[in-house]
Amino acid sequence: MANPSLLILAGDGIGPEVMTEVKKIIDWFGTKRGIAFDVSEDLVGGCAYDAHGTPLTDATMAKALAVDAVLLGAVGGPKYDNLDFSVKPERGLLRLRKEMDLYSNLRPAQCFDALADFSSLKREIVAGLDIVIVRELTSGIYFGEPRGIITEGNERVGINTQRYTESEIARVARSAFELARRRNNKVCSMEKANVMESGILWRQVVQEVHDKDYPDVELSHMYADAGAMQLTRWPKQFDVIVTDNLFGDMLSDLAAMLTGSLGMLPSASLGAPAANGRPKALYEPVHGSAPDIAGQGKANPIACILSFAMALRYSFDLGDEASRVEQAVEKVLADGLRTADLMGPEGGTPVSTSAMGDAVVAAL
Amino acid sequence: MANPSLLILAGDGIGPEVMTEVKKIIDWFGTKRGIAFDVSEDLVGGCAYDAHGTPLTDATMAKALAVDAVLLGAVGGPKYDNLDFSVKPERGLLRLRKEMDLYSNLRPAQCFDALADFSSLKREIVAGLDIVIVRELTSGIYFGEPRGIITEGNERVGINTQRYTESEIARVARSAFELARRRNNKVCSMEKANVMESGILWRQVVQEVHDKDYPDVELSHMYADAGAMQLTRWPKQFDVIVTDNLFGDMLSDLAAMLTGSLGMLPSASLGAPAANGRPKALYEPVHGSAPDIAGQGKANPIACILSFAMALRYSFDLGDEASRVEQAVEKVLADGLRTADLMGPEGGTPVSTSAMGDAVVAAL
Ligand SMILES: CC(C)[C@H](C(=O)O)[C@@H](O)C(=O)O
Ligand SMILES: CC(C)[C@H](C(=O)O)[C@@H](O)C(=O)O
Repeated sequence: MANPSLLILAGDGIGPEVMTEVKKIIDWFGTKRGIAFDVSEDLVGGCAYDAHGTPLTDATMAKALAVDAVLLGAVGGPKYDNLDFSVKPERGLLRLRKEMDLYSNLRPAQCFDALADFSSLKREIVAGLDIVIVRELTSGIYFGEPRGIITEGNERVGINTQRYTESEIARVARSAFELARRRNNKVCSMEKANVMESGILWRQVVQEVHDKDYPDVELSHMYADAGAMQLTRWPKQFDVIVTDNLFGDMLSDLAAMLTGSLGMLPSASLGAPAANGRPKALYEPVHGSAPDIAGQGKANPIACILSFAMALRYSFDLGDEASRVEQAVEKVLADGLRTADLMGPEGGTPVSTSAMGDAVVAAL
Repeated sequence: MANPSLLILAGDGIGPEVMTEVKKIIDWFGTKRGIAFDVSEDLVGGCAYDAHGTPLTDATMAKALAVDAVLLGAVGGPKYDNLDFSVKPERGLLRLRKEMDLYSNLRPAQCFDALADFSSLKREIVAGLDIVIVRELTSGIYFGEPRGIITEGNERVGINTQRYTESEIARVARSAFELARRRNNKVCSMEKANVMESGILWRQVVQEVHDKDYPDVELSHMYADAGAMQLTRWPKQFDVIVTDNLFGDMLSDLAAMLTGSLGMLPSASLGAPAANGRPKALYEPVHGSAPDIAGQGKANPIACILSFAMALRYSFDLGDEASRVEQAVEKVLADGLRTADLMGPEGGTPVSTSAMGDAVVAAL
């Protein structure tokens, strides 16, 4: 049988440096555990624009559709801020999500004990936090038509459309309920059904899917503004949160920031369950391209390493190997190793991006 | 000259109880300071639906348009959760905002020193916090057409439209810049220009208004998801934040929760500057109708009292009198008086809703 295939799109800013560390982990699995991947690499984002005038070429898109999993670093940077909307680095990422049909974006917000003091929130509010936001990723206002800037009378008008079909809502709801069953069996769905009809439909469909196929899962509904409040007040009340593309963008960033250590958080974007057990999938750290620290050996590779661990679990059914990576990360943290973003008042041993990667490999 | 006129819409849940305390303050101004208001009262929200089958009658709407300022308590409750969208309590509030053309919603997030420990955030992150979110309140996805739930093929589709005209953006931007000039002269504008064309227009217009008429104000732009993160990480970096209706809904609730004491936060919704110096205006607490504690004397009347103080300042040019109310509130807090929501581990004197109102009057 052929090796599972992996496309690495390191992207911009700190993307390439953190990806270098992930490659060490991948190599370790090949050499030490006999788990080899066919790895190919390509460009996405600003670097693809620089090379090809587009943030994602059709050839790269085709490769992404052909492999078993895509591992992405980060895209974007000030250099590209004034590019036209249609060729901005972000469009590369959005095209991948859309054409791979990655409708279920899992964003864990987990607070590592050793790092709880980094949070702007009190330790007792966030220590032990372990929730997942399931964000719909291929529809809603990100992709709805009509959209654009038109002229009406003598003024410009900006237009975007929020649009959700029943089946789009149902499939991401299913993915949230499935996930909840493997966790604490609780789902909270968030929308603005008090203001938006698309929110009313969202609430109805989530409830219907629940009543029909997941009555054993505890389901609640919350307005998204109240959700932002409750995440801030007492995040541990949640287990799995399911929400739309735009609310999910904001709420998952908020949830990530609660943990105080963005540099630690991975994410998975998954398509429909496939016959071979491998859904189309893209894995990426929650953090951005951090152009201000790029190329200085300061970036924290852990979020990207943990994204690879998610790939092991969700794409390759290697849950034990994923746990092995996660435990290695916990060990280096417990040993006091800290990249620049993790250096707090209580000290620790400052390490570079590559020293952190080496330490994780050593701990494997 | 006729007395300034005030329409009180106490609404549902704890609305009436907190408004009872505000009336004591209004009476005090009439009796002790010779500042009398023509006060009328009417229904909005669930109670209006119970009486008239609509959350806001045309007659009440006409009154609201005729008075100098509207003071609103809160609307909504579980009793009304299953009403049709078109007659939900919220529709009353949304109709007021739209027909009074209250495009500029000022939501201060201020952390009272005596209450800083109530925040889920660390004291040093929030103590002394004093920022204002200026939220566009009459347009965007709250009101855009087309909207609704339609059937396509054999499935339902939920649709809403985000729509902003240049002039809608420009006028709320102006109001944010004006406010910033009276504060720390800093505005941060938030949108998702990396994903939404309406966000691109928002950013452009805010920048144009700035460059043309407010070059002295420090302006920055941030994506709304990053904004949610930065508010959580270090909220004191901001002074005035200007954003659209939906982002403003979420970001202002988040900002309010940072302070840890929702029961303390007022808001003002203002229309265009008027010839008589009195813009159309509606003042309301940020908190909701809290049906779970309604009628038990547990509600904190301070947010509603401070909303009246905002009315004194913004509608009646009585800034000194507004400060007097604010200082009275600070005094009762410093004296240790605490409604149920403010009772923390460090104690204080527990008081009822009405005792808190009486204490503020006494402190005036
Ligand atoms: C980069 C941007 C297009 C993207 C989004 O808005 O989805 C990012 O914020 C994210 O959350 O992955
Ligand atoms: C009650 C609801 C319609 C309202 C809104 O979404 O605007 C509320 O959340 C608010 O922020 O005033």
